[in-house]
Amino acid sequence: MTKRNIRLKVSYDGTKYQGWQRLKKSNNTIQGKIEEVLSKMLESNVEIIASGRTDAGVHAENQICNFYTDSNKTVDNIRNYLNKFLPEDIVVKEVDEVNRRFHSRYNVKDKTYLYRIWTGDYPPLFERKYVYNMNKLLDINKMKKVAKLLIGEHDFQGFCSRKTKKSTIRDIKNINIQQHDNEIRIFITANGFLYNMVRIIVGTLIDISLNRLEEDIINIVLDNKDRSKAGEKAPAQGLILYEVNY
Amino acid sequence: MTKRNIRLKVSYDGTKYQGWQRLKKSNNTIQGKIEEVLSKMLESNVEIIASGRTDAGVHAENQICNFYTDSNKTVDNIRNYLNKFLPEDIVVKEVDEVNRRFHSRYNVKDKTYLYRIWTGDYPPLFERKYVYNMNKLLDINKMKKVAKLLIGEHDFQGFCSRKTKKSTIRDIKNINIQQHDNEIRIFITANGFLYNMVRIIVGTLIDISLNRLEEDIINIVLDNKDRSKAGEKAPAQGLILYEVNY
Repeated sequence: MTKRNIRLKVSYDGTKYQGWQRLKKSNNTIQGKIEEVLSKMLESNVEIIASGRTDAGVHAENQICNFYTDSNKTVDNIRNYLNKFLPEDIVVKEVDEVNRRFHSRYNVKDKTYLYRIWTGDYPPLFERKYVYNMNKLLDINKMKKVAKLLIGEHDFQGFCSRKTKKSTIRDIKNINIQQHDNEIRIFITANGFLYNMVRIIVGTLIDISLNRLEEDIINIVLDNKDRSKAGEKAPAQGLILYEVNY
Repeated sequence: MTKRNIRLKVSYDGTKYQGWQRLKKSNNTIQGKIEEVLSKMLESNVEIIASGRTDAGVHAENQICNFYTDSNKTVDNIRNYLNKFLPEDIVVKEVDEVNRRFHSRYNVKDKTYLYRIWTGDYPPLFERKYVYNMNKLLDINKMKKVAKLLIGEHDFQGFCSRKTKKSTIRDIKNINIQQHDNEIRIFITANGFLYNMVRIIVGTLIDISLNRLEEDIINIVLDNKDRSKAGEKAPAQGLILYEVNY
C-alpha cells in the first residue's frame, strides 16, 4: 500500500528552542516537538522532512515540511490535533495531502528569509523577541546600494560560518530592504542559503551602513571568499524563515 | 523650590503583571516596577500618577504618567536609565518636562482602548499574547451595527463589573471596528471607562455576533443597567490601552 504524503505549513517562535533539527540529547527542538505529537496521534514513529533547518533562536513564518503515513485521518483532523497538543509557540497553519513524490527539501525552488532590525531610540515592546534591537539609526540607502552587489550567482563561502566541501555557490534572486517606522526589514530570496549566510550578510550591511566597513568589502569577500573580512553575524532573534517556494 | 513635573509615555506587556497599580503585598505591578527604578535613580521615594489603572494581564501601547522631582537630570538621562533597568516588557517611549499643573489623571480628555480578537482557524503565533484567540469567524457587520447603539452619553452601569456610588455616566465618542486579515480590532474612545467596561462591551458584541444574544440587548442593558443581561467579559490579554488624550 502506498503511504499518503502529508505537507505541513508551520510557524514557530524559535526563542526557546535549540533550532529546527531533532537532537538525540534534547527534546527541545521544533522538529522533535512536532514529531512527538504526530507520532502519538498516528500511533507510529513519524519522521518529518523540512525545507531546511533553522538555527537556535531563529523563527519561521512559513516553514514547510512533509511526512508519510498509512493513517486515513483527514487533513483537518491532523491540523486540529497538532494545534491542540503542540506548545503555543509552534502553530500549524496548513495541512494538505500532496503528490507522493513531493519532497520538502529537494523540491525547493527558492526561499525567502526576513531579517528585522529595530532602529528606534527606545526598545521595541510587542516585537521584542522578533527583531534585532540596534537602537540606532542606519543608513538604509547605503544598505540598499551595496546589497545590489550580492544579487546573482556567486560563491558565498566568505558569507558562511562553516567550511564545507560542497558547493558554496548560490543564486540570490532578490534583496528587498524596507523601512517601516522604527524598523528596517530585509527580505533575501535565494535558491538556497549557506550556514549563517543571511545573518552574516545582514551583519555586513549593518557594519557598512555604520561606516565600520568600506562599501567595497562586499566585492572583496565575494572575490577572496574570506569570512574574516565580512561583518559579524547578526543575532538569531531577528531572523525569520519567511517563505519557501516550490 | 518648585519641583519639576516629569511626564512619561510608557508601553507594557501586561502578561506577567498584576496590573498597573502598586500593591503592598506584591512587587509584581507595572507602577511598582517603574517607581522602584525611578526611586533608585533619583535617590528619593518617587510616586507616579497614571492616567488610570489597567487590570492584571492588560497591555498598554501608550500609558501616560507623571511624577515630581528635585533632580536636575535631563529627560534623556531619565529615559535611558529607565529603559536600561526596567524589565524588557516595560518600555519608556518618551520623557518630557511639563507644566507643574499637569496631572495624568485629572487632565484626561479622552482615552482609546484597542481590543484585538483573532478569528483565524489556526492560533496566532507572533501575536499570541496580545489577542483573544476566538478561532472562529465573527459577523463584523453585525458588530458594527450594534456598536452604534453605545455611542454617546449613557449610564454604563450595566457594562461595569463593580457596584459604585459614583457616577456611571460616560460618553463614548467613537467605536471603530476593523478587519485585518485574521483579526478584528475594536477601538473604543470615551471620556472615561468604568471597571471592566471595555471587556464587557466587547464580550457583548461577540455574543451578539454569534447569535448568543439578541441585537436589542444593548439597549436593554443601557436602560435597565443590569450587568447580568450583558455578555461575559472578554479576556484581559486582548485589551490594550492605546492612547490617552489631554
